[in-house]
Amino acid sequence: VIEKRDDSAGNDPRRETGQSRRTFLTDAVAAGGVAALGFWNTASGAEPEKGAGAVNPRLFTFVGGKVGQWSVVSVKAVIGDPLPGVERLDIVTGAVAALPEGGKWMLRGVTSNDRYVTRDEKDRLIEKQAALGRPEATQMALIPIRKNAKWWALTQDERRALFEEKSKHVTIGLKYLPGVARRLHHCRDLGDSELFDFLTLFDFATTDSKAFDDMVAELRATEEWKFVEREVDIRLVRVS
Amino acid sequence: VIEKRDDSAGNDPRRETGQSRRTFLTDAVAAGGVAALGFWNTASGAEPEKGAGAVNPRLFTFVGGKVGQWSVVSVKAVIGDPLPGVERLDIVTGAVAALPEGGKWMLRGVTSNDRYVTRDEKDRLIEKQAALGRPEATQMALIPIRKNAKWWALTQDERRALFEEKSKHVTIGLKYLPGVARRLHHCRDLGDSELFDFLTLFDFATTDSKAFDDMVAELRATEEWKFVEREVDIRLVRVS
Repeated sequence: VIEKRDDSAGNDPRRETGQSRRTFLTDAVAAGGVAALGFWNTASGAEPEKGAGAVNPRLFTFVGGKVGQWSVVSVKAVIGDPLPGVERLDIVTGAVAALPEGGKWMLRGVTSNDRYVTRDEKDRLIEKQAALGRPEATQMALIPIRKNAKWWALTQDERRALFEEKSKHVTIGLKYLPGVARRLHHCRDLGDSELFDFLTLFDFATTDSKAFDDMVAELRATEEWKFVEREVDIRLVRVS
Repeated sequence: VIEKRDDSAGNDPRRETGQSRRTFLTDAVAAGGVAALGFWNTASGAEPEKGAGAVNPRLFTFVGGKVGQWSVVSVKAVIGDPLPGVERLDIVTGAVAALPEGGKWMLRGVTSNDRYVTRDEKDRLIEKQAALGRPEATQMALIPIRKNAKWWALTQDERRALFEEKSKHVTIGLKYLPGVARRLHHCRDLGDSELFDFLTLFDFATTDSKAFDDMVAELRATEEWKFVEREVDIRLVRVS
């Protein structure tokens, strides 16, 4: 049984319960979320609008270090500089204030709205895709990518043409569904300058490992990938 | 003389000098930028990759309070909840750690790549537009906007069709160039949950005030605006 789900829109899951973003933010303030972040200077006596400064509910933090549910099999630089090797990966929902003891790096990203897919493509993806976290999906890959300045200076129609008409990004991905599940995180528009523009997290069963390798090889051979200036491929297995 | 400039691509201006993002980040670390942000726990003895945690060079912070170069003429709720009225607006390049004494709110956003414009539209915009900061542009407007969940669940082709084919967003904007200059900041994918999705900053000469009012009225009457669930219109004049 495949759980059909649309993760890619990046909508706040709380919205599905009918709870508004505003209500959530007020709750976060009540729970001390804002104070913990230290964003507002409450000592000033000001009365900032409630809610600002709470963590984006679509934020995920990936901590490479000595703890976490995922054991690191390999950390390979595909294009550009490598990332330091680590023993474990901890995938945290939300923010992490400081790198924990033994941590070597921390990557952050937010799920968001689709940037390129059309309604037709989206419907086909939703029909076929699975959500992360299936019990049999014991293999994982985290692939951080940064695209070059030339890519970001392109207009929307130019990037879309490279993404799909020339590179078949969605078409390639669709071939490997539902075996390979995927969640995309955006980093480029975070308030801090991140090392990457995207973090894509994939999970799959051991029997789909070869298929996954084929998929990334296909994508890396595309026109779109000529704009990738840094890519690291981190392979993981679930700690039983 | 109009200075032609492409602010909207949101590229790091440092790249224009040939200095890479990586180099900039290393410089920022050397200057204590990361330590000041307190993002990395250097006391842990870990050796995080240099650079992560530095402020995004495309980040701007808008502080409503008692200080700043811009005097607040009015703060009007157009759709949804208002923002507290303030005396001054301070426009800060980069991050602001805490709300200053007398501050009532702080809005943040990053300039970024274009989401909808085509190459043809972009070329016409670049040909005609001016950059913010002309000496005669003593009038300013800051217009924070949040779009609803329905908008963000649309696919790229659906949002584009609403944006231009149905609402003529670029076409309307072009009519008012170069009199009205504009800089768009994105907030939705920041790590903190912001009150708005976009902050648009406009400046113009007093003689263009009527034209500016006409432009926002035209935009507010479009199909696209039916997806706006919160909009505040903040008018400002430069403090001489």
